[in-house]
Amino acid sequence: MSSGRFDADVYARRLSAAAAATTSAGLAGLVITPGYDLRYLIGSRAETFERLTALVLPAAGAPTVVLPRLELASMKESVAADLGLDVRDWVDGDDPYRLVADALGGTPAATAVTDSMPALHLLPLARVLGVMPVLATDILRELRMVKEEAEIDALRKAGAAIDRVHARVPEFLVPGRTEADVAADISKAIVAEGHSDVAFVIVGSGPHGADPHHGYSDRELQVGDIVVVDIGGTYGPGYHSDSTRTYSIGEPSAEVAEQYSILRRAQRVAFDFVRPGVTAEQVDAAARDVLAEAGLADYFVHRTGHGIGLCVHEEPYIVAGNKLPLKPGMAFSIEPGIYFPGRWGARIEDIVIVTEDGALSVNNRPHELIVVPVS
Amino acid sequence: MSSGRFDADVYARRLSAAAAATTSAGLAGLVITPGYDLRYLIGSRAETFERLTALVLPAAGAPTVVLPRLELASMKESVAADLGLDVRDWVDGDDPYRLVADALGGTPAATAVTDSMPALHLLPLARVLGVMPVLATDILRELRMVKEEAEIDALRKAGAAIDRVHARVPEFLVPGRTEADVAADISKAIVAEGHSDVAFVIVGSGPHGADPHHGYSDRELQVGDIVVVDIGGTYGPGYHSDSTRTYSIGEPSAEVAEQYSILRRAQRVAFDFVRPGVTAEQVDAAARDVLAEAGLADYFVHRTGHGIGLCVHEEPYIVAGNKLPLKPGMAFSIEPGIYFPGRWGARIEDIVIVTEDGALSVNNRPHELIVVPVS
Repeated sequence: MSSGRFDADVYARRLSAAAAATTSAGLAGLVITPGYDLRYLIGSRAETFERLTALVLPAAGAPTVVLPRLELASMKESVAADLGLDVRDWVDGDDPYRLVADALGGTPAATAVTDSMPALHLLPLARVLGVMPVLATDILRELRMVKEEAEIDALRKAGAAIDRVHARVPEFLVPGRTEADVAADISKAIVAEGHSDVAFVIVGSGPHGADPHHGYSDRELQVGDIVVVDIGGTYGPGYHSDSTRTYSIGEPSAEVAEQYSILRRAQRVAFDFVRPGVTAEQVDAAARDVLAEAGLADYFVHRTGHGIGLCVHEEPYIVAGNKLPLKPGMAFSIEPGIYFPGRWGARIEDIVIVTEDGALSVNNRPHELIVVPVS
Repeated sequence: MSSGRFDADVYARRLSAAAAATTSAGLAGLVITPGYDLRYLIGSRAETFERLTALVLPAAGAPTVVLPRLELASMKESVAADLGLDVRDWVDGDDPYRLVADALGGTPAATAVTDSMPALHLLPLARVLGVMPVLATDILRELRMVKEEAEIDALRKAGAAIDRVHARVPEFLVPGRTEADVAADISKAIVAEGHSDVAFVIVGSGPHGADPHHGYSDRELQVGDIVVVDIGGTYGPGYHSDSTRTYSIGEPSAEVAEQYSILRRAQRVAFDFVRPGVTAEQVDAAARDVLAEAGLADYFVHRTGHGIGLCVHEEPYIVAGNKLPLKPGMAFSIEPGIYFPGRWGARIEDIVIVTEDGALSVNNRPHELIVVPVS
């Protein structure tokens, strides 16, 4: 798809930067199988699993793509052709791991692999290389964390699209319908509002809202339910939306309203705290402190946020212990939640991007507990 | 979802069989991170990536699930609770790889890991174990290849659902619409006809049909196009549909009709060849020989089929060199194709299940080139 990737110069820049970082780290090269790192580096959406496809990026020398002959036609249509990458195809009977080693210039001492490389390929590759690789995460982290203008544009468009879905959620939340019914409507809306794919749908009603990682179930919605709706899709060249709003079917109790208002303040305080130089853990603490002061610390059981881009969860993680100073261009969620096991839960989540002097939110739906009227 | 997994006794049987196979192979245990093997063994749809979740199945002793505390609630609602698995949760600061080693009984000499375990977890696990694991594929292959009755039922229902989608495809194939437009309609139909998710959609029109792994693009359909439509979804407890039909927008040329009829015969001959005791490569050869006799050998550039179940591509692969004798319960595609680069392509694909004396097809749409009338 024409909207499925950026222009070739974006990827050429990324390859050069990755090679430079590989050299700085004293490594001989990177080996990148299909996944987010491959999409980041050359825009490839390859998803081969059992047959090895790999980008081999030596610290010095030309990048090579090793791939099954069957994939040659796809590769020729991809940005890899525009980038002038060397292509080494293989057929059954060849040893593709040997091709990777050759592209690295023999059997290099220190190679890094993408963190998603499956055991199926990593174990035979390590055998051919004669040494265990290390993780490429450290090499690519900085590059992938700081978003370029085109990436920010994609994240903003994705955010606007998921906002349009949330605007339609109240009409789906009808007592007697199941969480799964609602999830199906939301999935259709995610695509209808401009995403290429549904990434995930969480509809946590009543006690299910108290499980932050509940998906959806056959539970029927009831009047009085508090419903956590956490949804996201893939947009344009593979960037993601991810936004949570919490809904109340009918008017909430005074207790729910009170506790929700504290959550809302926690989310706002954390957002206001974001600016270059502040650390990831300080943003986490900003949200956590508001909840702790209100005696709700024990009900906020997860980190405040995660980075987002080609991957729904990526660095930087907004979590205690992460002393990473924020930089302009970093994109992550701010999503404190409160969870009362067996009763109800609530979460508010926006994706924000660090700017020169603060942050902008790509999600702009109201933050209050959204009351769905019942007849 | 209630339809999202089988009853607990199915998984209890599978765990016992896997432990017995582990013992037979002389291994100390299996370590299974989220993926198809985990879904197969305990019905878990866990998808955690950066935080380790793993089923540890020692050859002797109780299975243990190691998981982040955040996932405890989900696990308690899952079949793992019914199975009485030991659960060891961890929080930031703990070493989850040490918990895995402990559950294996220390630092065992020989451990097998699921083939999808990512480098992110495999490299630190190997460090704690002090030895490189091997692949669990050999241990689980036989178990996963031969489908039980409940699995066959799921595959048949998935097949009927994708047949209903193919029945609707002609109405989507309107000249002037793009492949992407058609793919969007098909995606909605895949869900509407009963799948829980879209697994993949290929709409290869005109010259794009000559690339077996084309997805879809902004190419507009034209009168005279031959269009390969290869689609699949996820159904019930995670089993897949996968079926290809080829469509002609307007009447095909005599040349296309002639070559398609040979392809159709190749697919039929391969299907008729399937029965217990025949090898996978013999089925591949049956299709290939028909095409070769007609001078089309060079245009059939891929294997004849792949196994299917929880994974869209799994063993047994129907390919030259695979001397595996077929057994009742094995499920795989028969999907010969012919590809004329830059011009057109065609493929016919059904999922078949080996029976006591032959095979049944879960797909039952007509096999002819389906002509879409143009006004």
